[in-house]
Amino acid sequence: MTDLKNTRITLARRPQGAPVAEDFHIEQAPVPEPSKGELLLKTRFLSLDPYMRGRMSTAKSYAKPVEIGDVMEGGTVAEVVTSHNPDFRAGDIVLSHSGWQAYAVSDGKGLRKLDPDAAPVSTALGVLGMPGFTAYAGLLTIGQPKPGETVVVAAASGAVGSVVGQIARIKGARAVGIAGGPEKCAFIRDELGFDVALDHRAPDFAEQLKAACPDGIDVYFENVGGHVFEAVFPLLNTYARVPVCGLIAHYNQDGGASSGPDRLPGFMREVLTRSLQIRGFIQLEFSDQKDAFLKEAAGWIADGRLRYREDVVDGLEAAPQAFIGLLEGRNFGKLVVKVA
Amino acid sequence: MTDLKNTRITLARRPQGAPVAEDFHIEQAPVPEPSKGELLLKTRFLSLDPYMRGRMSTAKSYAKPVEIGDVMEGGTVAEVVTSHNPDFRAGDIVLSHSGWQAYAVSDGKGLRKLDPDAAPVSTALGVLGMPGFTAYAGLLTIGQPKPGETVVVAAASGAVGSVVGQIARIKGARAVGIAGGPEKCAFIRDELGFDVALDHRAPDFAEQLKAACPDGIDVYFENVGGHVFEAVFPLLNTYARVPVCGLIAHYNQDGGASSGPDRLPGFMREVLTRSLQIRGFIQLEFSDQKDAFLKEAAGWIADGRLRYREDVVDGLEAAPQAFIGLLEGRNFGKLVVKVA
Repeated sequence: MTDLKNTRITLARRPQGAPVAEDFHIEQAPVPEPSKGELLLKTRFLSLDPYMRGRMSTAKSYAKPVEIGDVMEGGTVAEVVTSHNPDFRAGDIVLSHSGWQAYAVSDGKGLRKLDPDAAPVSTALGVLGMPGFTAYAGLLTIGQPKPGETVVVAAASGAVGSVVGQIARIKGARAVGIAGGPEKCAFIRDELGFDVALDHRAPDFAEQLKAACPDGIDVYFENVGGHVFEAVFPLLNTYARVPVCGLIAHYNQDGGASSGPDRLPGFMREVLTRSLQIRGFIQLEFSDQKDAFLKEAAGWIADGRLRYREDVVDGLEAAPQAFIGLLEGRNFGKLVVKVA
Repeated sequence: MTDLKNTRITLARRPQGAPVAEDFHIEQAPVPEPSKGELLLKTRFLSLDPYMRGRMSTAKSYAKPVEIGDVMEGGTVAEVVTSHNPDFRAGDIVLSHSGWQAYAVSDGKGLRKLDPDAAPVSTALGVLGMPGFTAYAGLLTIGQPKPGETVVVAAASGAVGSVVGQIARIKGARAVGIAGGPEKCAFIRDELGFDVALDHRAPDFAEQLKAACPDGIDVYFENVGGHVFEAVFPLLNTYARVPVCGLIAHYNQDGGASSGPDRLPGFMREVLTRSLQIRGFIQLEFSDQKDAFLKEAAGWIADGRLRYREDVVDGLEAAPQAFIGLLEGRNFGKLVVKVA
């Protein structure tokens, strides 16, 4: 084991705006040795998710930032190489949170064993993992779509949005998906079964959205912000629900007030007159629903009602560029890095 | 009956900013005659409430505006003068929606008989009426205060705010009330039992609020907007709930975007990172809770835990000036007009 090196990607500096390659540092370190009760994990897959942009910043958030020089945070699927913990043995595949590195030591806490025969293990990072659960809990607990209602979601070919639209359909609602470019739009419409797919890059996107929602919008699952939100907001019906799960369009805008007229008073007025519900959430709040999610989602996948697409990048060294692309919408499906 | 005149106050024109006396027209009309199945009501009390400002404007809202020349809308307590309706008889006191006029004809629909022995009938417009129910439903259904949590409400000596704070206390929460001037502050603290009373006119109001909420704010019952909201927002805890019931500070600002930096993106970011819930509502949404409210509130009044104060103005002709003062916070307690 001592001959092996642990490739690790650390935060070299805090990004100014969009992250660039120089914000990350790729280094080789000795593979750590597990102590009594611990186990050594070898990363198979690393999940790349938009929330990681928040961890690179010191802006106040729901979680502490990654410190400069520390390994970037991230969910992983890993194989147990050595175990000094009676609950695990070598060869076990686990869902872990090892971050952007090839090896990690764990005390076993928070690990979940995966059954490679039940589903491809990488799905534990996507459709059957945090992103899928985010979609499930946010849509069902906050969005509460009813049959016949209109649910709109952006980044609809992505890890969260794709699940939101499909669960909306399962619950009998109309799913209007917004994605970037004709290929992604075709995918969500033809492969995932969304009722409507709209390209947010179209010059007349706002008009297209209005035409696609003749009865208004009952649920808007917010994961992007920006000009999509601007087009959605006037269409929200009385009693519409807006689970706020992410604002990827703003993640590269650290601090600083936006220019232009102040839209907040008008926003609050509409919240009042249309009895809107705007509700931020992080999936951890709903962790008591996790088991129900895993069971239901596995069933939906089995009967073909919940489909997923992965965008697999090869090698840990490719993670920084893949992550930079994720924030620009260049991925197509759930972005994972195949580490080993 | 034909010798009597019906004093009516109509909308003369739509206000530009704050309403002025000239926006109203006081006129004398014949007292209407009830037809078969109808009854003639004589207004005893007229309720004046901030929402009426919205009815004077054509800005999109949850209810249609009052047309120019039409009688101003409003809840009333009235006495049945003549009844051609078997469900009512002369002398009955009813809660009605006759608007700003001395007499009105009704078909009986939507009227609720009041028992003058149970409570002063004017309370059906305040603590036991729409404002009290607004406080009850918004606080309990959306705000959901838990024992030990901090609930903040502005306009705390008013019809809604006073009930919000007292119910918060009944539910075991801390009630921090905001009011305008030392007299109102003393009232909410000493008479209503709020834990803290703050004067929003104080130059260091924001600092005072922060000091008064050492554990942050769990529920902010929003009925004013403006600089109070600005002071509250940074103090909202993770999972804080904000029932949005009114925005009186903005009611006189018809249309037009506010100047200054755009605070909406930063607001949404905080909604996300602090898992906030912002929820507009109108009490009508919760009308299935009305009976429970009437029963509970009557009990709380009886055992002294729910107190109220009325600001009674004499004569219908005084209604316009009283309403103008209401929007400026010049009332002290629930504002009602004693019509007859």
